[in-house]
Amino acid sequence: MTVTDSNRPHAYQPGTPTHLRAINERSLLEYLRKHGPTSRAQLARETGLSKPTVSQALANLEQANLVHPTGQATSNKGGRVAILYETNPKAGYVLGIDVGRGWVRIAVADLAGQIVERRDEKNTTQSAATLVALISRLSRDLVVGAGLTWDQVIHVVIGTPGVFDAQNERVRFASNLPEWGRHGLLAELREAFGLSLSIENDANLAALGERTFGWGAEARTFVYITIGTGVGMGIIIDGTLYRGAGGAAGEIGFLPFGAQEASTQITEIGENYLGMLEEATSAQGIARQAQTLGLPSTLSVRQIFDAAQQGNQVALAVVKQEGEKLALAIAAITAVLDPELIVLGGGIGQRGELLSEPLQHKLQQLLPSWPRIVATRLGGDSILLGSIAIGLDIAQDLVFQRYFNQVSHS
Amino acid sequence: MTVTDSNRPHAYQPGTPTHLRAINERSLLEYLRKHGPTSRAQLARETGLSKPTVSQALANLEQANLVHPTGQATSNKGGRVAILYETNPKAGYVLGIDVGRGWVRIAVADLAGQIVERRDEKNTTQSAATLVALISRLSRDLVVGAGLTWDQVIHVVIGTPGVFDAQNERVRFASNLPEWGRHGLLAELREAFGLSLSIENDANLAALGERTFGWGAEARTFVYITIGTGVGMGIIIDGTLYRGAGGAAGEIGFLPFGAQEASTQITEIGENYLGMLEEATSAQGIARQAQTLGLPSTLSVRQIFDAAQQGNQVALAVVKQEGEKLALAIAAITAVLDPELIVLGGGIGQRGELLSEPLQHKLQQLLPSWPRIVATRLGGDSILLGSIAIGLDIAQDLVFQRYFNQVSHS
Repeated sequence: MTVTDSNRPHAYQPGTPTHLRAINERSLLEYLRKHGPTSRAQLARETGLSKPTVSQALANLEQANLVHPTGQATSNKGGRVAILYETNPKAGYVLGIDVGRGWVRIAVADLAGQIVERRDEKNTTQSAATLVALISRLSRDLVVGAGLTWDQVIHVVIGTPGVFDAQNERVRFASNLPEWGRHGLLAELREAFGLSLSIENDANLAALGERTFGWGAEARTFVYITIGTGVGMGIIIDGTLYRGAGGAAGEIGFLPFGAQEASTQITEIGENYLGMLEEATSAQGIARQAQTLGLPSTLSVRQIFDAAQQGNQVALAVVKQEGEKLALAIAAITAVLDPELIVLGGGIGQRGELLSEPLQHKLQQLLPSWPRIVATRLGGDSILLGSIAIGLDIAQDLVFQRYFNQVSHS
Repeated sequence: MTVTDSNRPHAYQPGTPTHLRAINERSLLEYLRKHGPTSRAQLARETGLSKPTVSQALANLEQANLVHPTGQATSNKGGRVAILYETNPKAGYVLGIDVGRGWVRIAVADLAGQIVERRDEKNTTQSAATLVALISRLSRDLVVGAGLTWDQVIHVVIGTPGVFDAQNERVRFASNLPEWGRHGLLAELREAFGLSLSIENDANLAALGERTFGWGAEARTFVYITIGTGVGMGIIIDGTLYRGAGGAAGEIGFLPFGAQEASTQITEIGENYLGMLEEATSAQGIARQAQTLGLPSTLSVRQIFDAAQQGNQVALAVVKQEGEKLALAIAAITAVLDPELIVLGGGIGQRGELLSEPLQHKLQQLLPSWPRIVATRLGGDSILLGSIAIGLDIAQDLVFQRYFNQVSHS
């Protein structure tokens, strides 16, 4: 039971003194986190708490190093000087990890969301065990390199392709990462890190990153579509991540659009499946299509796009087909969700300037109107920043819970 | 500012005495509405309000005819008898209207959601003006027939195909209703009815009807797909209708799946558009498909389905194609939304027993897993019941606001 439980049928819930203290101190912390440096008098005014209650709460929180005085402000009444308080960003740290087929990216940030240190490393691992070992080692190096100790990290968020199946504690549909779908992966990761840890779908994280650090400032309801090694989508509805009933919302790789020459059903790869849209539009799909049209098989997707940019007609045809398939996906997403904004990301999605013309042309044939389509503002960092964004929410909860458990048992 | 505003950073908001009284009386009303007959002592216990506050509030609400005593309960302590209170269902009425191409259905219900009277009438109108006149006349007849006066109706909800564009107060994409998309339709309706009135998309209402009176008891996040004269979808996320950024969520008629022989782009009809899926799967699409395969053009969709049920091979082929197109739509909806449950309704959607086999067979080729697919529990009444469901929410608000405006100005 919290004060924000909107299903409560009544206005005032009687509580124990400890419960009240937790509510009050938590409210002050959240206020400070959202609004930055604030004086005691203003906190009292804004929260409706009495000045003595605010003073006592601030004293408690300051003693626990969760808030600290940060400067002074001159009041407009008679020029008295007031001390301003803010949350202590160094009260804890979060670790965000973007595990991709090509790269592993890691960042450590303080509780204010400021990134202290980051590192990108090529992912050349061929098994889940070596990948777990790699990210755990890189993380420890990073934390030490940042001048921090391991136990200052409150929470770790790992972004991964596929769907995290919380019930079975495993990752489904991550066909690009060898063995990554095996049972017990979460337990292995928790053991390797020895910290509070959660796994989240990479496209969901990218959407959260965009919400907190990118286009989210301009749209409350939007989707983030990533097209790269795989395809995926994160959905933000009214500022909140929508995961779907089973955590598989936005798995647009399974949209039933294949290329003409592609298979007309999903492909089963061991325990994994490759959806039709994924097969048609992901990097592999583009490379295959380029080869069919006569381009050398040695060309990377980046090289194909570069060739198109320089006017190569065959490469342009490949890009055109990619834009048209993306239009089919966007038409389906728009028909179902009607988002305010569509953000494109991922290695291919970011090449919006080339995809845009065939994409818009095809959309005109499919829909009477569609949302604004933009490129990510975060480049290749959406997932990493999203893991920091969700990690902060969790860590701020944990920091307060730990503090309050100590208080209520002392 | 209400007590359920969960963005409030603080626990207790000081209020004026009138504000507090509104909060308390509103809370009691909502509690009684949800939980049925309740004693004063139990209300005090459950809401945290003092017994004198509860007694005074109940007295006020009873005087205004919003609650009334309904019986007695024997307390388990010493056998004392307690009076039970409930909300007064006769404090107002709502009118729900389902405007379809073929039929107009109207119902009037009390504030407890009990339908007092209903009527179905063929829609043979050929203009918006005659349709407005028809539903207004039928509504007045119905209300008088129910022994009520017109001013006892608190709110009217009109369900219509298409998207209600609130900004321009008109209905878009309702290509099956002549002139219905014209500017000023809402004003015409309000003038004809002379009552508080709102317009809502029919598929959205059907989903709300299902939420309140049907499958909603078993799923919090589900979609209602209607296939009949047109196709559409209503989306319920965590018990709440999701409308999309521009009110066009669930407009699955625009899913880019045509039949092989159908056009590969949307069709423009005056100011309206016919989406590809709509063209392929709606009643007209089925009739056209049946004709192509050699069935007489005089057969209705119902007759085609009946013939399939009796084993007619050509009719079965038509039904099979319909099931497969529906599978493409369901695959797209599942990839995007991952709902718990898919409810099929509308004249064609209800024939689930015939569609099921080709539908499930095709889904196996498209997805590794998909949600449970069921037929509506409300037959052809989903839209009508949905208009009552949303009408109740609005009317209950209005009834309380009117009462409280009187109180605070007396």
